[in-house]
Amino acid sequence: MGTIPRTSDVRQGGMPVASEMEAFFNPSSVAVAGASSSAMKLGNVTLANLMRFGYRGKVFTIHPRAGEIMGVPAYPSVREVGERVDVAVGVLPRESILDFVLDCAAAGVKNVIVCAAGYSDAGAEGAELQRRLEEAVRSRGMRMMGPNSVGTISTRSGFVTSLMSLDPIEPGPISIVAQTGLFAGGFALWISSTQLFGLSKVACLGNKADVDEVDILEYLEDDAHSGVIAIYSEGIRRGREFWELASRVSRGKPMVMLKGGSTELGMSMAASHTGSMAGEDAVYKGALAQAGVVVVDGIDALFDSAKALAYCPLPAGPNLGVVSITGAGTVLVADACHRRGLPLPPPAEKTVRRASEGLPEWAQLGNPMDIWTATLQGSVEDAYRVILGAFAEQEDMHTILVVYTLVPESEFDGAEMLAEMRESHPGKPVLACFLGASEVDRKRWFRSMEEKRIPVYDSIERAVGAAWALARYADWLKRSGG
Amino acid sequence: MGTIPRTSDVRQGGMPVASEMEAFFNPSSVAVAGASSSAMKLGNVTLANLMRFGYRGKVFTIHPRAGEIMGVPAYPSVREVGERVDVAVGVLPRESILDFVLDCAAAGVKNVIVCAAGYSDAGAEGAELQRRLEEAVRSRGMRMMGPNSVGTISTRSGFVTSLMSLDPIEPGPISIVAQTGLFAGGFALWISSTQLFGLSKVACLGNKADVDEVDILEYLEDDAHSGVIAIYSEGIRRGREFWELASRVSRGKPMVMLKGGSTELGMSMAASHTGSMAGEDAVYKGALAQAGVVVVDGIDALFDSAKALAYCPLPAGPNLGVVSITGAGTVLVADACHRRGLPLPPPAEKTVRRASEGLPEWAQLGNPMDIWTATLQGSVEDAYRVILGAFAEQEDMHTILVVYTLVPESEFDGAEMLAEMRESHPGKPVLACFLGASEVDRKRWFRSMEEKRIPVYDSIERAVGAAWALARYADWLKRSGG
Repeated sequence: MGTIPRTSDVRQGGMPVASEMEAFFNPSSVAVAGASSSAMKLGNVTLANLMRFGYRGKVFTIHPRAGEIMGVPAYPSVREVGERVDVAVGVLPRESILDFVLDCAAAGVKNVIVCAAGYSDAGAEGAELQRRLEEAVRSRGMRMMGPNSVGTISTRSGFVTSLMSLDPIEPGPISIVAQTGLFAGGFALWISSTQLFGLSKVACLGNKADVDEVDILEYLEDDAHSGVIAIYSEGIRRGREFWELASRVSRGKPMVMLKGGSTELGMSMAASHTGSMAGEDAVYKGALAQAGVVVVDGIDALFDSAKALAYCPLPAGPNLGVVSITGAGTVLVADACHRRGLPLPPPAEKTVRRASEGLPEWAQLGNPMDIWTATLQGSVEDAYRVILGAFAEQEDMHTILVVYTLVPESEFDGAEMLAEMRESHPGKPVLACFLGASEVDRKRWFRSMEEKRIPVYDSIERAVGAAWALARYADWLKRSGG
Repeated sequence: MGTIPRTSDVRQGGMPVASEMEAFFNPSSVAVAGASSSAMKLGNVTLANLMRFGYRGKVFTIHPRAGEIMGVPAYPSVREVGERVDVAVGVLPRESILDFVLDCAAAGVKNVIVCAAGYSDAGAEGAELQRRLEEAVRSRGMRMMGPNSVGTISTRSGFVTSLMSLDPIEPGPISIVAQTGLFAGGFALWISSTQLFGLSKVACLGNKADVDEVDILEYLEDDAHSGVIAIYSEGIRRGREFWELASRVSRGKPMVMLKGGSTELGMSMAASHTGSMAGEDAVYKGALAQAGVVVVDGIDALFDSAKALAYCPLPAGPNLGVVSITGAGTVLVADACHRRGLPLPPPAEKTVRRASEGLPEWAQLGNPMDIWTATLQGSVEDAYRVILGAFAEQEDMHTILVVYTLVPESEFDGAEMLAEMRESHPGKPVLACFLGASEVDRKRWFRSMEEKRIPVYDSIERAVGAAWALARYADWLKRSGG
């Protein structure tokens, strides 16, 4: 495929796009408009989040009358702050936005985030308002996220502009680019309260009048903290640029994408990639896959795949070796692998010889391997260790998946065992799946697995889906010479 | 289709099958072999479960030497109990099973559960052993569950034979017939610790040498406590009988089924239903659908659908009316409904007029309807109430689905609101979906929804899948004149 020239990362103006984006994630100072000293408005939520996340830059707030809000100095206009403002956040009604943006321009503020809705999300009149807003911003050399955007989260700098009251999120390797505020809202809360994978950056783009996925991708490409990029999009406007950039970014870091809406992106991708306007899901999925993007079909799958790609080495091939404490697990894994096109090679003679140590002589030794029979004699822990070791040893079992249901397993430390196995076979991804189990056991095992960066899932379909994402990306990388 | 004669519910012997099954669920007395007074063996788990579940029948244990085990009187053989034994549970190694069964026969025990594995699950030799075991049982007029079965759970009688240490499960309308022990193991623990839907009966059939799905279905058909039947099967042997019985049972109570293994059931169903041996997934799925069985493709979907069918009235048609606090939710619901073939009718003029009360004048009013804009003005709670009311009022929105992400929603009691709406529109199913949210909020909302019997799901695909199951069954019932 050859090296793709970096044509899109310097805009007309001459400043690299990635540098332009920096102030959306790591600004030295921020001005927030839309907080109040008397009432709890959405702008106050933004201020509170900045405090809770430990943002260390300067914070100003813009208010016509207040002297300070929540301990933050207030100014009647951005123009009167009298200090450099890296980014301004407008948590204001639609009617006040244009004036706010013009004030920012006058004050030399280069980056604005516009939260107001009611633009291209609101019919023809809104679209016209958005066009004017876009023009105002572009003609003044500014960059705008939104409108209808809740902005960004940057866990390391503690910069956060969400309108939802959040708790701090652990830094981690996954960055998210989304058109919806969900990922800086409900899902941010879900991650901070239950997940251990952590986040690097989140950008919620809203209507994308100016800043879009291409801009953010330019930035994340060279962001050392972003190891995996997860994207939720409802339509890529700059299809060809996105495709070229994705093809390049994918060589360095995996990208997973969920497309919301069944036709728009397809039409845009097809129009810009193949010149066709007739493209639908299959076309854009084909184009994205060709660019190395792992395309998934739901939010769960987006997180599941991103987590596996963040935790695991890439497998040498698509094959799975599966060990399950439940016979139904072996059957359902086989079904799920079949649907995903993931082969299950038979255990080699040597594998069978080793595996049979912990099982009754009549046990059937296949792949998936049912180790329930080990509960009938001897130690289940030993059986797991021996069989998993034998499977990991077998070269053509490229990824190992273990299906637990946490009954005899409650007796030993399964995460420790998998971590040891991974140490002996560092090139081999190891995934776990838990079916059922009591809330307490489940939480304990999930936590101990995730603490050791072993991706764990609560359904067979989800675990196999994550294994598929690993295989899919690994295969693309190999084929593209990466 | 006409009434299907009840040909299969009386066996050759003359005793109705349903009566024969009774002792597997509500025995007056049980004998457990395989517990020990000195060690914690699997049989001890069974005894402990019986105590914990509050089983009120008589319990005996069979042990060559012990006088009692865990306070339960022990006898060297079932023959020496000297009292009527309704069901005997053999938690014994394969080698001891045949003798155990012959003892049971000699003692007049009509029902046995055989937990030992190593039969048809263990190659040709095992299959031959199973054939002999089956013959021994059948020739003596006994009924056997297993081998390789963990038996049953009956929440109301407290009878439970699982080999996994369980906690009591609330009585509820769902009964499960499964070939795997998972549903009397990991999933039983998951239900008792996290779910509110409760269970009526669980039967884990194992290798089905004798008792199979047809037998249990005969029993559940007239069991007033079983309102919904969920089935996990890896192959139906008596395909025609199953099909005929399912066609009849479905008229009275919904059945949901997950088929593990991609060909066996298809072949069996096809062979017995159409005479073809070439049947695959599509064939058996077609046959099952024709019999009114809702076929799903994963364990999550099995529970999701069973729960919806247990909680909700049947919708008058396939259409959904959807309200979402997140714009991405509206897009992803539309995708999921499209994949499931569930139409989303546009809001009628009257609906739009009512719904627009709580929203800015520029808000786009469609179905799904995005009520995020309501957070920008006035009360979100009022907006939910008004819009949901208008949607429920619109006749051709047959099922209502609400997508929350629990940020502004944390301020009000959403479950109470939905329950009120349901009261005004008792014929209309109402489902909820939560995306993300903190662990605490999530738990609180899930619990309050489930306490009011409003089915709630944590992904859009799962919620729409459950709505699909309702629509599917309702449609079948209507078409079959039920």
